[in-house]
Amino acid sequence: MTIFSTLDILGTIAFVISGSLSAMNRKLDLFGIFIIAFVTSIGGGTIRDILIGNTPVSWMQNTTTIYLIGGVTIFSIIFRNKLDYLKGSIFLFDTIGLGVFTIMGVETGINAGLDPIVSVALGATTGCFGGVVRDILCNEIPVIFRKEIYATASIAGGFCFMILYTFKIDENIIYISTALLIILIRLLVVKYKIALPLFTIRS
Amino acid sequence: MTIFSTLDILGTIAFVISGSLSAMNRKLDLFGIFIIAFVTSIGGGTIRDILIGNTPVSWMQNTTTIYLIGGVTIFSIIFRNKLDYLKGSIFLFDTIGLGVFTIMGVETGINAGLDPIVSVALGATTGCFGGVVRDILCNEIPVIFRKEIYATASIAGGFCFMILYTFKIDENIIYISTALLIILIRLLVVKYKIALPLFTIRS
Amino acid sequence: MTIFSTLDILGTIAFVISGSLSAMNRKLDLFGIFIIAFVTSIGGGTIRDILIGNTPVSWMQNTTTIYLIGGVTIFSIIFRNKLDYLKGSIFLFDTIGLGVFTIMGVETGINAGLDPIVSVALGATTGCFGGVVRDILCNEIPVIFRKEIYATASIAGGFCFMILYTFKIDENIIYISTALLIILIRLLVVKYKIALPLFTIRS
Repeated sequence: MTIFSTLDILGTIAFVISGSLSAMNRKLDLFGIFIIAFVTSIGGGTIRDILIGNTPVSWMQNTTTIYLIGGVTIFSIIFRNKLDYLKGSIFLFDTIGLGVFTIMGVETGINAGLDPIVSVALGATTGCFGGVVRDILCNEIPVIFRKEIYATASIAGGFCFMILYTFKIDENIIYISTALLIILIRLLVVKYKIALPLFTIRS
Repeated sequence: MTIFSTLDILGTIAFVISGSLSAMNRKLDLFGIFIIAFVTSIGGGTIRDILIGNTPVSWMQNTTTIYLIGGVTIFSIIFRNKLDYLKGSIFLFDTIGLGVFTIMGVETGINAGLDPIVSVALGATTGCFGGVVRDILCNEIPVIFRKEIYATASIAGGFCFMILYTFKIDENIIYISTALLIILIRLLVVKYKIALPLFTIRS
Repeated sequence: MTIFSTLDILGTIAFVISGSLSAMNRKLDLFGIFIIAFVTSIGGGTIRDILIGNTPVSWMQNTTTIYLIGGVTIFSIIFRNKLDYLKGSIFLFDTIGLGVFTIMGVETGINAGLDPIVSVALGATTGCFGGVVRDILCNEIPVIFRKEIYATASIAGGFCFMILYTFKIDENIIYISTALLIILIRLLVVKYKIALPLFTIRS
């Protein structure tokens, strides 16, 4: 049980909770909740696997993930009111998932011998895509275009990962620093309402 | 000409008819009709092939499918009023396609040596995804989230397939029972307005 | 530096400009502009690579593309008013990208030994999909269903390519004729408001 596989499980749990809470908020039925939970948690990794040609994709090779998603979804349904009581829990679990899955993506890119900038892009894809597919399925504006600086946090984390990696820092320290940086950026952006600049076209 | 390839052709025809009828209902032009018919009929199988790494994807290796889709689309355009006269024909053909393509997906999973639960998920993906992509392209709420219990029927069929397969029942009987079960579930659900439970969050 | 790689760069630049101009028109923030520019320019080629199993997909193997996209996006942001001053520049650059990327797709299909009709479909996928993904992400009706005859122009170009190829015409002439035909069709369609027929269902 490495720190890497622990993070994988943690990220999956976080995305399943965020996915099933948003599905319940949208009043989807039992099955819709399972689908959204599943898609949110495996979406990013699936796209990552498809892009680099790692097929059959991860969740098909590791059925534990499927049972984990099923179990955590049932847990989320039962404890939905307690989970939602923590105001902003969707935001919180989504952010944890983003932080953890970004690391998985960057690490996969490095292991596949891809260029650093490509590994950062792969990290952002892995981190963000679960949420993007969830929003497209629900016919909402994808999370990366909302004001909460989603992909930007993921990419900043990816660069942090690559810089620490270049200096041959211990892997576990890289993992934890990267995840904390991503989570911190999102929290600060929301708390202080930081926004990226707009560029309007003169009309 | 096995029963498997016959079912493949039958499912393709069913999805082309359902796709082109919905495109005409949405007043798309000639080309839009062809695209929706094409996407609805090959979407599920394409996603299945991509997930398991069977590339180039099936319709690229078997051009008969492309000509079949073209021919059936023209047929649907010419006989659109007769086809639509059968009230609920989009629903009917969509259901047949769902039943048949679920089988194709489960069978593919088994042949690729994947775990039973993964094969069921692959069956649901193959069966449902054509309709999902069609709905996303048309900016509608995807069919799996509407009240007609789409993916649930497909997954129930997938489990039925796996159980019969475990008991080494004759393949042709498995195919037909699975398809009939899926079609039956959807028909009963619509007829008796059965709905899956909702779980609302106390506010 | 072949004419093929020159066209690739030209198509990428055209799609980055069209993508970033539409992102600014939609008032997306700095990061949204980069994402839309990136997705519009690599979307079609990425889908093409995934469909034929050419993984890791092209932009992961050739990082120059990533830097080119970044640079042209910054250029588009700085010169946004000048670029937009040319009325219809989104339409123009989008059309150039469509023409060039259709060629890349057809050529890839031929090189992979695929059937001519499949190569034409692959050309249309490569040409159109960047714009389709851009529109889905922005929750708009995908470009292929608008009245400007997008995919039809791409497919007409694909057939032109295959016919010239059959007669063993010089490749550079094929490339340029195909691109010009696609651009011409779109310009004529918009200028003369040509529309494809509709087929309504009697109610």
